[in-house]
Amino acid sequence: MNRRLVLQAGATAALATLLLGVHAQTAGAKRQGIVIQVSDNDPAKWNLALNNAKNLQDDVGAANVDIEIVAYGPGISMLKLESPTGSRIADAAKAGVKVTACENTMRGQKLTKDDMLTGISYVPAGVTEIMKKQHEGWAYLRP
Amino acid sequence: MNRRLVLQAGATAALATLLLGVHAQTAGAKRQGIVIQVSDNDPAKWNLALNNAKNLQDDVGAANVDIEIVAYGPGISMLKLESPTGSRIADAAKAGVKVTACENTMRGQKLTKDDMLTGISYVPAGVTEIMKKQHEGWAYLRP
Amino acid sequence: MNRRLVLQAGATAALATLLLGVHAQTAGAKRQGIVIQVSDNDPAKWNLALNNAKNLQDDVGAANVDIEIVAYGPGISMLKLESPTGSRIADAAKAGVKVTACENTMRGQKLTKDDMLTGISYVPAGVTEIMKKQHEGWAYLRP
Repeated sequence: MNRRLVLQAGATAALATLLLGVHAQTAGAKRQGIVIQVSDNDPAKWNLALNNAKNLQDDVGAANVDIEIVAYGPGISMLKLESPTGSRIADAAKAGVKVTACENTMRGQKLTKDDMLTGISYVPAGVTEIMKKQHEGWAYLRP
Repeated sequence: MNRRLVLQAGATAALATLLLGVHAQTAGAKRQGIVIQVSDNDPAKWNLALNNAKNLQDDVGAANVDIEIVAYGPGISMLKLESPTGSRIADAAKAGVKVTACENTMRGQKLTKDDMLTGISYVPAGVTEIMKKQHEGWAYLRP
Repeated sequence: MNRRLVLQAGATAALATLLLGVHAQTAGAKRQGIVIQVSDNDPAKWNLALNNAKNLQDDVGAANVDIEIVAYGPGISMLKLESPTGSRIADAAKAGVKVTACENTMRGQKLTKDDMLTGISYVPAGVTEIMKKQHEGWAYLRP
């Protein structure tokens, strides 16, 4: 009987660990991220996206928030070599902001990685990345 | 005492089933959907929304993602009979994308279902649909 | 032994209460809110945001949804004293919609509270507010 009680207590503890673990994961994911969409061919919007990322880091602390800027469609020009926001993007990357280009869009516009800024990341489809991050609990922002 | 132990084990099992069930539901809902908002009177945006839906289906598989395009406000023209994107919308619907018009907006613009493309869905208020889907765990995209 | 059984039952009950409490909180938060972003210097967008809030309240009942409109960046002009949507914003506030200005943006544009409409709220950074609300389970809308 003692053994059964112990087993029972063990099972309850395991259940608690499992469920609280899931909770911690969910709550953690929800607390930490924001994906910022850039899909306009408009440097004012690019600067606004970069301002938003910087203000967020200044307000909550860069260590407390994961930020990813995803450029796709007409917004891909933000990440081309000749982008007027090139130096600001380098600064953002240095400050821990992930900056990601959509390879789907690049293929459509016959762009290769040689045409793009250095220090950025790539995903097969920007829209999938934006969806995936939200499903992981990240917030969404479209400046 | 044995009976109490069994009751106790039963209660724990019921609790586990209940909570894991809730988790499965939440996780499932979060994995599967994206609602795409069209609220601009701008055919370039309509095409971008349709491209986004198609790229998403190509990237993750049409069977793995529920997509709903909701047109409201100035975006309602996307779904009028004379819409330049009419044939693309028919293709999207055939590919499993749900395309939804806001009846609130239609009333405001004195549009009836006879003025609209065939094969689309209707909701009383587009904005409520967009909110509801996010509360069900769907991601949000505004091209 | 009886005491241990009772302790065990107590622990399970406490766990259930804790976890179901967390669930209720999460589910409750997800059911009730939407944050509406205004970041364009475009009175048509301001009116659309106000229409969206009103349609939502009319559709689901004002008591059933928390709505917050957050104006930041180029959208801050919506909340200036001379805003063409001033009287509509007062109506929205009376109807229970929270209307919030970004102090970051105000500082950047050398605006003080004396330059702004009465009856609005303030946050240090609009983008943080928009992120926080989503992390609390609110939906997001960008008209």
